[in-house]
Amino acid sequence: MQLSKRLGAEIFGTFWLVLGGCGSAVLAAAFPHVGIGLVGVSIAFGLTVLTMAYAIGHVSGCHLNPAVSIGLAVAGRFPVRDLAPYIVAQVIGATLGAFVLKLIAAGAPGFDLVASGFAANGFGDHSPGQYTMFAALVCEVVMTFFFLFVILGATDDRAPKGFAPIAIGLCLTLIHLISIPVTNTSVNPARSTSQAFFVGGWALDQLWLFWIAPIVGAIIAGALYPLLTSESQTRGVGAVTR
Amino acid sequence: MQLSKRLGAEIFGTFWLVLGGCGSAVLAAAFPHVGIGLVGVSIAFGLTVLTMAYAIGHVSGCHLNPAVSIGLAVAGRFPVRDLAPYIVAQVIGATLGAFVLKLIAAGAPGFDLVASGFAANGFGDHSPGQYTMFAALVCEVVMTFFFLFVILGATDDRAPKGFAPIAIGLCLTLIHLISIPVTNTSVNPARSTSQAFFVGGWALDQLWLFWIAPIVGAIIAGALYPLLTSESQTRGVGAVTR
Amino acid sequence: MQLSKRLGAEIFGTFWLVLGGCGSAVLAAAFPHVGIGLVGVSIAFGLTVLTMAYAIGHVSGCHLNPAVSIGLAVAGRFPVRDLAPYIVAQVIGATLGAFVLKLIAAGAPGFDLVASGFAANGFGDHSPGQYTMFAALVCEVVMTFFFLFVILGATDDRAPKGFAPIAIGLCLTLIHLISIPVTNTSVNPARSTSQAFFVGGWALDQLWLFWIAPIVGAIIAGALYPLLTSESQTRGVGAVTR
Amino acid sequence: MQLSKRLGAEIFGTFWLVLGGCGSAVLAAAFPHVGIGLVGVSIAFGLTVLTMAYAIGHVSGCHLNPAVSIGLAVAGRFPVRDLAPYIVAQVIGATLGAFVLKLIAAGAPGFDLVASGFAANGFGDHSPGQYTMFAALVCEVVMTFFFLFVILGATDDRAPKGFAPIAIGLCLTLIHLISIPVTNTSVNPARSTSQAFFVGGWALDQLWLFWIAPIVGAIIAGALYPLLTSESQTRGVGAVTR
Repeated sequence: MQLSKRLGAEIFGTFWLVLGGCGSAVLAAAFPHVGIGLVGVSIAFGLTVLTMAYAIGHVSGCHLNPAVSIGLAVAGRFPVRDLAPYIVAQVIGATLGAFVLKLIAAGAPGFDLVASGFAANGFGDHSPGQYTMFAALVCEVVMTFFFLFVILGATDDRAPKGFAPIAIGLCLTLIHLISIPVTNTSVNPARSTSQAFFVGGWALDQLWLFWIAPIVGAIIAGALYPLLTSESQTRGVGAVTR
Repeated sequence: MQLSKRLGAEIFGTFWLVLGGCGSAVLAAAFPHVGIGLVGVSIAFGLTVLTMAYAIGHVSGCHLNPAVSIGLAVAGRFPVRDLAPYIVAQVIGATLGAFVLKLIAAGAPGFDLVASGFAANGFGDHSPGQYTMFAALVCEVVMTFFFLFVILGATDDRAPKGFAPIAIGLCLTLIHLISIPVTNTSVNPARSTSQAFFVGGWALDQLWLFWIAPIVGAIIAGALYPLLTSESQTRGVGAVTR
Repeated sequence: MQLSKRLGAEIFGTFWLVLGGCGSAVLAAAFPHVGIGLVGVSIAFGLTVLTMAYAIGHVSGCHLNPAVSIGLAVAGRFPVRDLAPYIVAQVIGATLGAFVLKLIAAGAPGFDLVASGFAANGFGDHSPGQYTMFAALVCEVVMTFFFLFVILGATDDRAPKGFAPIAIGLCLTLIHLISIPVTNTSVNPARSTSQAFFVGGWALDQLWLFWIAPIVGAIIAGALYPLLTSESQTRGVGAVTR
Repeated sequence: MQLSKRLGAEIFGTFWLVLGGCGSAVLAAAFPHVGIGLVGVSIAFGLTVLTMAYAIGHVSGCHLNPAVSIGLAVAGRFPVRDLAPYIVAQVIGATLGAFVLKLIAAGAPGFDLVASGFAANGFGDHSPGQYTMFAALVCEVVMTFFFLFVILGATDDRAPKGFAPIAIGLCLTLIHLISIPVTNTSVNPARSTSQAFFVGGWALDQLWLFWIAPIVGAIIAGALYPLLTSESQTRGVGAVTR
């Protein structure tokens, strides 16, 4: 399919990931008495990917995440020449999603974007549970490693066909169930960038970690999975544009 | 299949959507100590669609929602001549579902339908989180846009077969996880109408928004999805009656 | 397959339904601070059916419920001569599951089976939310009707293959999300009987409703579904023993 | 596939099971106000298996659990000569997962591994709900029995293809929804060992039960399932290395 259509799909998909995932956190997580809590936010993040993978997997591969595109490229499943346009599209989509979330959130009495945190990622004083920078770094590297490991495995030619969006979406749910207290969970530099853009200050200062750690984790997985599994052929969500 | 059987299926399906989704909200959301909260209500709404899509997708396409029928018609997946009967069936089914819910809910000591809100949709003073009319409008347009986007994508001929009910049902769960605090979540004019019918007053006054916004969102998605994805052939849940 | 093996499968399956569903309610629903609440119990009940339908669907059809067997027989999907042995096996399996649950639950300090309610079904003073007998009756009839409707639809020959256990299991989750406050949710006379057997007293006095209402709902669905959908051929979880 | 690659897959998979399942418990279960509770932990444990079964089912069969390997061997689905290397790999992977979890958890102010319990399994005074040793023993035997029963059924040649990871993963979720209050839920000696290794003291003293009970349950299921179901052929997640 033409690159322009694939980039359009990545923009809409990443828009949905941020509006849905960060939106559930900002609008509904701490709603009085019946709020969705971290369980609801975790489910929401995963379902943004599950739903979009069925909706646009056949168009763009549904990466929605620079770390995913890079990990797939390292594993030989995605052309390196498409990396830059994909990453730009993902950051644009994420930022548009955050902008619409801001429009909606501002409709509540007394909403203060910066004071709310706006679901931005952070460590140290800006970690939900005050986790250190080292813990945040380890956590984001390891979580993204396993995210890519599951993506590469579930879209492997030998895995059952059609189920990859379930495995991948619910893997993102799982990652959030574990790690929101540590960093608010990124594993996705585009998602982190869009929230830091509107929060500014500390969120921009700490943004480097949420580019470096996920990408490192993704590169390790992209290099290791093919060795571990004697992969020779691939297909699927992560590989449709091959 | 004959139109009468398809309309019968839409009546039962929309009945279930309202009884299950609004029922979980009215009967169980705020039950003392162990209530299901907004997470449970979100799961319930999604599962009404997931279960019915497997049960009657092969009969009527399982729209259960005027905005869905309209969006599919705009995308060329549903005949325009069937729009009016489908929408009438959906509103009838929703109202019957709300009637049975009223019968059950009235069996609890001290139940007051109007004071409870009966899961009606609203904005401003009648938004669960006091969100403004503008925020409600943006939210309902955008949420319905993505709902149709996922429906059109997951039932696309190029998507994995059989999984569309999971993607579509869980998309409705996701939409509720995000937006119950804003409008109590509609994205479905039939569901809004059935609750407003019994609540009356403010709920009828505000009902216009829950017809206009979902339909606008659905029309945009129905026009845009085919352009974005070079669609030439379609199939599936949203298209069985084509 | 031989009837004896099919009955063995029904015994183990219904054992699991009661141990898992009622067990989650008795052991974990109200655990201090981190209890699973009604959402967790609802998920547990649904997953007992989802897991068993994949495990023994190919052996016995995985009914696990007298109302399901009767509804399938009315719809012409299950031989009437097998009804009595299936129902006996289901009640035996449920009672064994309740017995093992009692063994485990009695290991906690201060456990009092009768005072705990043991997840028995009830109405009026014994409804979790004090719902009247009339509300309980309406609720159980309607919920079982839709349960059978979804079972018949999802195992219809025209529905996607392999997904019925997901649709049926999650339908039971949905039914619990709506109706635990009304009757503690039965829709299954075997499950109600096993708990009433150990609780005695009021639970046995009220047990009649949890045989009559689910069976009435199931009969209506079994009669109506084929008419509504012009069914000519069937297959699947509910029909493997045909 | 070569044994070394299969063992590598088991190490990574069991690492993920412990990091994800125990990690969600240690890091997020009791987070103030919005913690994931036992529902979130139950979902997390199940999703570690669901995600890995799609990712490495085609490599190693994705056992991740000595009781699973033993139960499959008893049922004739796994070669006895591979039991020892698989179990060693599972314990190594689990211990590495626990080590990384310790690294992350130690980044929170005031974290005390022993005082936190570190999600170790226990009975009596070390059961979350003070359940007796007898209750713990019954619970672990019965839960592991049904876990293996579902694994054997869902990977049976006659079950729908591709769905086994959903059935098996969600079965583990169900088991946790029922039994965390009793023993913190093991059904997996490798998972218990990795936590006991870091907690020491009482956790090592009680570890014997979490080897014996799951293995006994698994052996019974492995012996009984083929008899019950006239099994002649098998395939799938549990049988790929046959």
